[in-house]
Amino acid sequence: MTSIIDNAAPARHGSASGLDALFSPNAVAIVGASDDIRKYGNWIAVQALKGSRPVHLVNRTRSTVLGLPTVPSVSAVGSPVDLAVIAVPAAGFEAAVDDALAAGAKAIVGISAGLGEAGGEGLALEQRITAKVLAAGARMLGPNCLGVLDHTTGLTLASNEFPLGNIGVISQSGNLALELCALLADHGLGVSRFASLGNQADLDAADLIEAYAGHEGTAAIAVYCEDFRDGRRFARAAAKAAAAGKPVVLLTVGATDASVRNAKSHTGAMVSSGIVVEAACRAAGIEQVTSPAQMAHLLQALVRSKVPAGSRTAVFADGGGQASVASDSAATQGLDVVEFPADLQAALAAELPPTAAVSNPVDVAGGGEQDIMCFARVLDHLTASDAVDATLMSGYFGGYGSYGPELAAKEITAAHAMASSTAARGGTVVVQTMNWESAAADALRDGGVPVYRGIEEAAWVLGRLARRRTEPATGVPGLPAPATPVEDTGYHLSRRLLAGAGIPFVPAAEVATREDLLSAARGLNYPLVLKALGDEHKSDRGGVVLGIADPPALEDAWNDVQARLAPSSCSLEEMANLSGAVELLVGVRRDPRFGPIVLVGLGGVFAEVLRDVRCALGPVTREQARGLLLSLRGAALLTGARGRAPVDLDAAADVVARLSVLAAEHPEISEIECNPVAALPDRAIALDARIVLD
Amino acid sequence: MTSIIDNAAPARHGSASGLDALFSPNAVAIVGASDDIRKYGNWIAVQALKGSRPVHLVNRTRSTVLGLPTVPSVSAVGSPVDLAVIAVPAAGFEAAVDDALAAGAKAIVGISAGLGEAGGEGLALEQRITAKVLAAGARMLGPNCLGVLDHTTGLTLASNEFPLGNIGVISQSGNLALELCALLADHGLGVSRFASLGNQADLDAADLIEAYAGHEGTAAIAVYCEDFRDGRRFARAAAKAAAAGKPVVLLTVGATDASVRNAKSHTGAMVSSGIVVEAACRAAGIEQVTSPAQMAHLLQALVRSKVPAGSRTAVFADGGGQASVASDSAATQGLDVVEFPADLQAALAAELPPTAAVSNPVDVAGGGEQDIMCFARVLDHLTASDAVDATLMSGYFGGYGSYGPELAAKEITAAHAMASSTAARGGTVVVQTMNWESAAADALRDGGVPVYRGIEEAAWVLGRLARRRTEPATGVPGLPAPATPVEDTGYHLSRRLLAGAGIPFVPAAEVATREDLLSAARGLNYPLVLKALGDEHKSDRGGVVLGIADPPALEDAWNDVQARLAPSSCSLEEMANLSGAVELLVGVRRDPRFGPIVLVGLGGVFAEVLRDVRCALGPVTREQARGLLLSLRGAALLTGARGRAPVDLDAAADVVARLSVLAAEHPEISEIECNPVAALPDRAIALDARIVLD
Repeated sequence: MTSIIDNAAPARHGSASGLDALFSPNAVAIVGASDDIRKYGNWIAVQALKGSRPVHLVNRTRSTVLGLPTVPSVSAVGSPVDLAVIAVPAAGFEAAVDDALAAGAKAIVGISAGLGEAGGEGLALEQRITAKVLAAGARMLGPNCLGVLDHTTGLTLASNEFPLGNIGVISQSGNLALELCALLADHGLGVSRFASLGNQADLDAADLIEAYAGHEGTAAIAVYCEDFRDGRRFARAAAKAAAAGKPVVLLTVGATDASVRNAKSHTGAMVSSGIVVEAACRAAGIEQVTSPAQMAHLLQALVRSKVPAGSRTAVFADGGGQASVASDSAATQGLDVVEFPADLQAALAAELPPTAAVSNPVDVAGGGEQDIMCFARVLDHLTASDAVDATLMSGYFGGYGSYGPELAAKEITAAHAMASSTAARGGTVVVQTMNWESAAADALRDGGVPVYRGIEEAAWVLGRLARRRTEPATGVPGLPAPATPVEDTGYHLSRRLLAGAGIPFVPAAEVATREDLLSAARGLNYPLVLKALGDEHKSDRGGVVLGIADPPALEDAWNDVQARLAPSSCSLEEMANLSGAVELLVGVRRDPRFGPIVLVGLGGVFAEVLRDVRCALGPVTREQARGLLLSLRGAALLTGARGRAPVDLDAAADVVARLSVLAAEHPEISEIECNPVAALPDRAIALDARIVLD
Repeated sequence: MTSIIDNAAPARHGSASGLDALFSPNAVAIVGASDDIRKYGNWIAVQALKGSRPVHLVNRTRSTVLGLPTVPSVSAVGSPVDLAVIAVPAAGFEAAVDDALAAGAKAIVGISAGLGEAGGEGLALEQRITAKVLAAGARMLGPNCLGVLDHTTGLTLASNEFPLGNIGVISQSGNLALELCALLADHGLGVSRFASLGNQADLDAADLIEAYAGHEGTAAIAVYCEDFRDGRRFARAAAKAAAAGKPVVLLTVGATDASVRNAKSHTGAMVSSGIVVEAACRAAGIEQVTSPAQMAHLLQALVRSKVPAGSRTAVFADGGGQASVASDSAATQGLDVVEFPADLQAALAAELPPTAAVSNPVDVAGGGEQDIMCFARVLDHLTASDAVDATLMSGYFGGYGSYGPELAAKEITAAHAMASSTAARGGTVVVQTMNWESAAADALRDGGVPVYRGIEEAAWVLGRLARRRTEPATGVPGLPAPATPVEDTGYHLSRRLLAGAGIPFVPAAEVATREDLLSAARGLNYPLVLKALGDEHKSDRGGVVLGIADPPALEDAWNDVQARLAPSSCSLEEMANLSGAVELLVGVRRDPRFGPIVLVGLGGVFAEVLRDVRCALGPVTREQARGLLLSLRGAALLTGARGRAPVDLDAAADVVARLSVLAAEHPEISEIECNPVAALPDRAIALDARIVLD
């Protein structure tokens, strides 16, 4: 496992103009262009020729490809070529790159496979080639990638056609990008730019997110990524893109051994664990999804709709069953289907037949057939209301047009009115209709209202939109300057390091001999605790003796521990009064991609029953630590319920924050943990300490 | 709240021939047939005329409708008419029914709204009309329904066209049925029968499930239902249908106040709480879903695929990204993406390019372009393997045909081979492909392999299929004969009732006076507990004094409780040694639709933190009770972890089972609860008892 994160991140080499050359080259060369329809060199040449700039087909052995004359090398073109696509076998890759750089190429798109992902010599070769590219002031996409495309500059260097639109796609899988595009097309969406990541030997996902964030034609960024490289940089780039109004939606893998096994095998990717990626996404405001379909659904809403001010949701349907199913779906997604205030109910009732439901959900109950404009009037009341943050519409709208041309025209008029009033009032409206492919549905989409076929995805999308407001990104923390590295991890050294960082411990002394013991006991208050050191599972093996009341009991405990475990040394500690305590585990682990990750959880019996752990990119502030603690499923234990005293949450959060800063200052520490920390009504106190060096 | 469940369920009135007349009438009359295209009487007449049997349009005021002659009444038809559809205003409904029955109709389809769902007089009228229908030996669907359809008899008495197929649809919402049908059509599926439930004044969902279970043209049954009426009968009908090879998929509502509010408003439905319906579904093997899309997805698999023998799942893709995403999706659904044994890996490797992944997931890594038949060979190895229960295929299959006619033909050959070998080997294969509308995908479907567009639904469906084997239906319990009703619910009476049913309690006595107290104390062993009676929240208010060590302490406790609470009486009890105890809450609540529902949960501090409750249709056996306890999220507390002694699970299960039988024998009890039951390493003992009568 190699770590990519550094406290002092090296300045990136290479030139920004390489990125210009990648997306907007003056001309392109396809090295390895082929007539064989089973080869990438064929597919990409076919697509390239559809573009609007000179394309040079490079083939060493054939004088024509696709009926066009070839050149034997990029150097032989004789005019400047900014970008070279290289689709030759791995053995010829270095020579082809040398040739392209010699001819002045500023961007290399490496299609060739069998390099870095093969490890060993392939990786060494890839690194050498990458260094050459950067030294020449150029940039490289791939190798082992599938190409690049920019619809805003007419660049089509990918194996397939992509629909035109405003979604920037960055993908480490070609098929998933194709699948996403098909799904986007259903929503009337398409792609502004596409870049295939491949091995990320030079350009990585963060570089491309940065480039897309500054790209006028891109409204949102879709990323499929298996290896995040410098995960902090990735997260920061995504946060900056979101701040520039271009939210990032991320599909990744790693929830299972099987997917990790597979990702390693096909791109040599180092896959980060799911809980770490989730923490990075929360920090950066990245929307993580689990399928291409979720990605397309969410992108539609992100590029068309506003984020609502909260989660109070009106459900509005033209059928009782759909109104109920939509209400349940909304609630499942954390949306609040509030009962409407009386004035809103009265206003809605005035627009609808007497059998209509108006308390929320709204059911027009046949009102659509009678007067299709009622949809627009109802929606306007809902978006105008102070009691409603967002509207989830469900049902049949778009199907009334099938009853005849007059109703069809009126239905489209209604759709335009619905979209206009939503935009004018700054409302958030998400529509599900079984007639999702109708002209009226298209009119809604064109007017900026996202339309879905299924109620589950519509409700899910609205829930996600609302959470962008109710659970905003916490920010990607910077890493502090490294402190003097620690070299030992003994219990008492760990304890001193933590105590030095301001984490409270009970008074204690390390004792190796009976003399130490007696001397130490004189400086401590009974009752005492004796811990055998050097065994992580000391409490399970009887290496911790609690409640030692007096010197004779201490003597007994010492003799017992020595006889059973013969530890090299022990810790003699005052025993804290833990009545009313909630045990926490607080730790920081260093992820090779994302750096220090703060973990908090409930300890003791709850740890095994609840498996209730939350994590965040470290270091965290005390306020963020409070948030983490309160987001535990068992948080009720901390805040006091059924007459128990609440614990001192600030003190517990302080321990978490201090530990997180200490860990961030010590990149040589791979794990640091206080387990348990006793959270008491009036303080928090660490009862154990453990450090593991890298 | 009226209860529909009775211990001695009355025999259903009406004739079975009414159901024959409903689905296969000799002729039909449409009462209220209309030329107004905004009216049901128009829509249903239009559809009816497409059918294959005589249709009589009945209209009192117009001599023609839809250009055809009308009759003024059903009686005026002059020849037998088995079935009358009645689509007149509520005020004319009774007269129309009288006329139809007088003319010999054996089935009434009541479209008219404004009857039972309006409550009050409307409900009384509906009940009177229903009685007349039953007395005439006829049956009625609705009123407030949308019609009936049977594609196997050419009957089309619904407002819309439905695609032809083998799914029996029963729905309390017209729009949801239409939405389902559109989704089924995507999968190449359609409807055998459709019945709209409406108010279920006579025929209810259970009747229709029974009718569908015996219908040759129906392979699976889709139900949207808001009010289950006699829920036990519903569950039993569904269990019988499943046993007949016709699984029931159920969409219902009630997860939120909003959906309950709405369901009541549009059909007057009594909605059961989600946890109760879930219990009924587990008992009956009903597949509960939350959207029409889930319904369609699952139905495809149920009618096309086998249930796998377990959850060991092969993931098979033609792209690395899709292989990883599919693996994660499968794991999310509880499927086990096991690493393959060496011999299977070797067999797969022999079929694929050297870059292919074969350990699971399988990634053909470009093998598809080189040799499309590799899909069939790989799938055959997977379905033949003893190490694999099911295969989830994901990716691009169906798209290779776009490369040219030769590959297109080969791809279809491969699809046929895949379907044949799956069938021949009795395997379970679920396919996701972005080319889901391709000819090759159709060939898979035609051969009995379900094909999906999205990986999430494919993985979800496979997870559901696997659970039909790994978590089989527990069966719908019968209700015992009622015992002599209890009339009082005092603490000690409750305790005696429960103790009489074999539930262990600590020795105790009810004491109203100081004399009682002293006398009772002489028969009990210290330490004692004194509980003030008459207050449900006694422990929160200091009405329980624990650990009374001796007579003076008892005196103090008595005086204190009397002074503070002045209870009418107290309970004096021995104090059990609860070291190592896990507190459980065990109770039974009577649901008006589904009868006695057994609830078990963790008590004490875990109750508030975990909200960890499981429920089942009562009564339960001891074995089922064990299963409930072990299905608690906090079950680790019961089975002993990290050195704690496990509790006596059999004893705890015995308490649950005995309480459930007692409750089932007492339909007059609406709630009965022991909270807590202390589960100890060597026994279980109830520490409290509470009964609420209806």
